[in-house]
Amino acid sequence: MHGAELAGGIDGPEALAPLLAEVLGALRIGAEARGGPLPAGGPTGVALLLRDLLTPAALLPETGDPDALRELTRALAATAADPADPACAAHLHVPPLAVASAADLAVAALNPSLDSWDQAPGGTEIETAVVRLLAETVGFARPDAARGVFTTGGTESNLMALLLARDAVLAREFAVQGGAAIPAEAAGRLRIFSSATAHFSLARASGVLGLGTQAVVPIEVAEDGALDPRLLDWSLADARTAGHVPCCVVATAGTTDRGAVDPLRSIAAIARRHGVPLHVDAAYGGGALFSRTLAPLLDGLGLADTVGLDLHKLGWQPVAAGVLLAADAATLSPLEQRVAYLNPADDEEAGYTSLLGRSLRTTRRPDAFKVAVTLRTLGRSGLGAMVDRCHELARHAARVITSEPWLELVAQPVLTTVLFRYLPEAADGRGTGEDDRRVSDAVNAELRRRLLANGTAVVGRTELPGADGGVRLKLTLLNPHSTEADIDRLLALVVAAGAAVEHERAGRAGPAQHRPRKTQEKPA
Amino acid sequence: MHGAELAGGIDGPEALAPLLAEVLGALRIGAEARGGPLPAGGPTGVALLLRDLLTPAALLPETGDPDALRELTRALAATAADPADPACAAHLHVPPLAVASAADLAVAALNPSLDSWDQAPGGTEIETAVVRLLAETVGFARPDAARGVFTTGGTESNLMALLLARDAVLAREFAVQGGAAIPAEAAGRLRIFSSATAHFSLARASGVLGLGTQAVVPIEVAEDGALDPRLLDWSLADARTAGHVPCCVVATAGTTDRGAVDPLRSIAAIARRHGVPLHVDAAYGGGALFSRTLAPLLDGLGLADTVGLDLHKLGWQPVAAGVLLAADAATLSPLEQRVAYLNPADDEEAGYTSLLGRSLRTTRRPDAFKVAVTLRTLGRSGLGAMVDRCHELARHAARVITSEPWLELVAQPVLTTVLFRYLPEAADGRGTGEDDRRVSDAVNAELRRRLLANGTAVVGRTELPGADGGVRLKLTLLNPHSTEADIDRLLALVVAAGAAVEHERAGRAGPAQHRPRKTQEKPA
Repeated sequence: MHGAELAGGIDGPEALAPLLAEVLGALRIGAEARGGPLPAGGPTGVALLLRDLLTPAALLPETGDPDALRELTRALAATAADPADPACAAHLHVPPLAVASAADLAVAALNPSLDSWDQAPGGTEIETAVVRLLAETVGFARPDAARGVFTTGGTESNLMALLLARDAVLAREFAVQGGAAIPAEAAGRLRIFSSATAHFSLARASGVLGLGTQAVVPIEVAEDGALDPRLLDWSLADARTAGHVPCCVVATAGTTDRGAVDPLRSIAAIARRHGVPLHVDAAYGGGALFSRTLAPLLDGLGLADTVGLDLHKLGWQPVAAGVLLAADAATLSPLEQRVAYLNPADDEEAGYTSLLGRSLRTTRRPDAFKVAVTLRTLGRSGLGAMVDRCHELARHAARVITSEPWLELVAQPVLTTVLFRYLPEAADGRGTGEDDRRVSDAVNAELRRRLLANGTAVVGRTELPGADGGVRLKLTLLNPHSTEADIDRLLALVVAAGAAVEHERAGRAGPAQHRPRKTQEKPA
Repeated sequence: MHGAELAGGIDGPEALAPLLAEVLGALRIGAEARGGPLPAGGPTGVALLLRDLLTPAALLPETGDPDALRELTRALAATAADPADPACAAHLHVPPLAVASAADLAVAALNPSLDSWDQAPGGTEIETAVVRLLAETVGFARPDAARGVFTTGGTESNLMALLLARDAVLAREFAVQGGAAIPAEAAGRLRIFSSATAHFSLARASGVLGLGTQAVVPIEVAEDGALDPRLLDWSLADARTAGHVPCCVVATAGTTDRGAVDPLRSIAAIARRHGVPLHVDAAYGGGALFSRTLAPLLDGLGLADTVGLDLHKLGWQPVAAGVLLAADAATLSPLEQRVAYLNPADDEEAGYTSLLGRSLRTTRRPDAFKVAVTLRTLGRSGLGAMVDRCHELARHAARVITSEPWLELVAQPVLTTVLFRYLPEAADGRGTGEDDRRVSDAVNAELRRRLLANGTAVVGRTELPGADGGVRLKLTLLNPHSTEADIDRLLALVVAAGAAVEHERAGRAGPAQHRPRKTQEKPA
C-alpha cells in the first residue's frame, strides 16, 4: 500500500530518502511562493491559500493521495512566518539550526519514548547525560546530585517547579503526604512570589495546581525591569503576618519583553533566609550561559533549587527543548511513579532504569538528542558566538532607534530584545497626554498589523504598564545571520508603515509622506 | 562557522540536504550494528556503547565537532529499541510511518509555534481543520460547535479534561470563579470515577490538580476488563450520600494492557443522569475509528463531553500526536488567556486568531501537520487496513499461544494487545498455589529481561490483580508489516527463553531443553 512504509529499521532510510527530497523541494518552492517573512494577505489570505487542502474530504479521503506530502509541505512553507527571514523578529521564536532539525529527524524515525528503558535504551542514557551537563553548566554546587528532565518549555517547567514546591510545603507545614488533596486548612493560603513582569504561565500553573491564579504575588520591578530584592524580602515577611504560607520564590532570568534578569544571588539569599525554595525561570536568559560576555548576568543561578531552561530559545532548537533542573535529586522524588507495565521494581533493580518518574508526561520523545548533537557540533564557543551576535544586533537596533526621529527606545537591550514605539505626529506633544497615548497605541498596533498583512515584516508588540505605558513594538533578535543592514531595513519598514497609517487616519490623499522631524525634536 | 546554518528560509533545504544524507547513512549503519530489535548487553552494554560520546567534555567541547551528527545518530540507532523490528512489540510504541516522519521534518525546519498567529499563520489553520475533522470522526453531534487542541499524549489530555471538569464543578457547586483557589469547603471532596484498569495518569492528574490521587474512585471491571455500568451508577449515588462531589466520569476506550473498551453508550447515559461530565480516554482505542470492523466497539464515543486521542498510537505518528476534543467550545473556555505580547484583543478582533487559549502549553509545535499529511496520504481505507492488520496479528498470536503447551493466554485480544504468560514446569500444579505464582512471576520477569539482555526481543510485561493474577507477558502488535511467521518466531523466542531460565534456576548443566508437554496437559 502506498504510504505505509516505515521510517525505522534497516529499510527506513531507503523509504525516507525520496520523501525527504520531496520535503526539501516543497520547502523551497513554498518559501519562494511566500517571498518574504510571511505570506501577504493576513488571516483571510492564509485561509484562502489553504482552503482546498483542509476540507474534511481533502484531509481524510476514503482513498489516499500520494501527493499529500508535497502539497501540504509546500502549503505549510508558503503560509509560515519563517524566523529564518531577518524580517521575522517578533517572538522568542528561533530559526532552528539545520543540524538540530536533522537530528530531530533521527528521533522521528526511531521514535524512542522515555517512559521505559525498553522503549529508549540509548535515549535514556542520552537524556541523563545532557541533563547532567546542563546541571554543571548552570553552576549547581553538586552536579552529580542534581537531576532533571526535558520539558515542552518554560510553561511546563514552571508548572513542575510549582507543583514540587506546593507538595513540599504541604508536607512540611501541613503534614500532608505526597499525592493527597490540598487540605482545607491550606486552602487559599499558599503564595508564590515573583516579579510583576514574570511569565504569565506562573499564574496559570498556580490555577492548575488548585492554588488559584491570585496566589502569585507580583513584586514591583525596579527601573531596569528586574525584581527589587528588598520588596521581595518585605513581601515574604508580610505574607506570614497575613497568615499566608510562602510556597516558592520565582526569579526570572530574562523576561519575555525586556530581557530583564532578576538579581539572582540576592534573591537566593532572601529565599533561603525565609526557608522558601527558589525556582529560576531562565527559559530565555539561560542561553547567556554559553556567552563569556553575558554569562555574568546569571551570577547566582547555581544557588537555585530548580531552574528552567529552553533550548528552543537561545539554543536554536526546533520546538520543543525545555528542561527543568533540580539541584537535589530528592526535589523530584514526589514525581516517582511505579507502573507495572513500565517500570516494575525488579526490572529497576536489575538495572533497567526508567525516566518515567522524572516527568509529568508518559510517552515522551527524547528532545535531548537534538540538543546533544547541537552542543557537540557547535561547541561552547560556537553557541556563545551566536548568542553574542544576536545581542550585538539588539544593541545596533537600539542605536538606530535612538537616532531615528520617528522611533522611541524604551530601554537599552539586556539580551536580544528591543522595545520601542513609533512616535506618531499626533503624539508630538500637541494633544493631551491621554489623546497622545490613545493615538500612539492605535498607530503602533495598526502599523504592526499592516506589516503582517503586507507580508513584509513580523514585528512584536507588547504593552507597558503605568501612566507612561501603552503599546510598544518589540524586536526579538534571534537570527545570528541577520546583518546590521537587515535591521536597518526592518526599522525603515516600521517607520514607513507608521507614516502610512497616520496618512490614512488623517484621510490624506496621495502617497504617505512624513513631515521632517529632527532627532532633537523627539518628545522627551 | 561550521554548523550554524539554518534549516528555514530559501537556503534551508540546501543546508539540510547533506545533513539528512548523513542522518540516513548513520541510521542504516546504526541499525545494522544493532542487528536486531535492540542492542545486546542490557543497560551496561548500552552505557558502554555511549560512554565516550556522553562525557561533559564530549557533549560540550569548547570548539565544535563536525562529526557530531553522524556519530551521535549512529549511536542513537545502535542503542534504540526499534519498533520497526517485528520482535519489538512490548508497548504502545509504534514504528512511525516514513511519510509522517518526513512531514515532521518540515515542521522542524520552519519551527512554527501555535501560541500566536504570527508564529504560525498556516499552522493555526491546519490544527483548526484537523481538530474539526477529528471532531466529526469521533461522532460529536455538532462538529462545528466542537473545539480541541493537540497535546503531548493521553496523559496531558487526561490532565486537561480533569482540570476543565474540576473548574466546572467548582463554579457550579461552589460558586468559585475560574482560576480561584480550591475553596476549603470543597477540599478533599471532589471525586473522579473510572474503571479500576483506567490509565494511571488519571490519579496523577488528580494529584497535580490538588484533588489528591485518592480522588479517583476505581470501579470494578467485568470479566472482559471493561467497566460495569451498574457499579458506576451505584458509585455515583454513594458518593453523594457520603458527601463527595462527583467531578468527572472517565471511560476508557482501549486499556493499555487488555485493550478493553468500556461500554460508552451506557456510561454516557449514566453520567448524564447524574449530571457529571464524561471524558473518554481513547488514546489507544481511538484508532479503531479508521477501521470498518472495529469502529463499532466505540459506539457512543460521540456522546462524551471530551475525548482524548493519541495518533502516535494507532495512527503511526512519531511522538507526539495527542489530541483533546471537546464537544462544546464552551468547555474549553476556562483555558482562555489574554497576553499582551501574544494575543491582544484588537489583533484578535482584526482576525489574527491565536490558539494560545486552547492549550496548557505556550510554545507549541504543530503536530497536526504530520497528522494531516498522514491522513491524506493513506486515506481512511489505508489507515483502516493498518489497524485491521494489527488486530489480525493479535488474533493470530492468541491462536498460537492457545495451541502452545508452554504458554497460557489471558483473554482474546480486543484491539492489538495479547496478554499471556509462560507456564513454568514448577507451575504445573505440583507445588502450592502460592509457590506456583511466585515461580511463574519470577520466571516470566526473568525470561523477558533475558530477551532484552540478549537483544533478541522486546516483549512487554504487566501484572494482573487478584488471586489468579501476577506477572503476565504482553505483545502490543503495532507493526502492520509484521508477518504471521514473525509472530511465531517471537513466541518461540519466549518459550525458549522460559526454558533457559528454568534450566538455570534448576541448576542443570548442558543446553536448556523442555520435557514434552501436550496442550491438553496445560494447567486449567
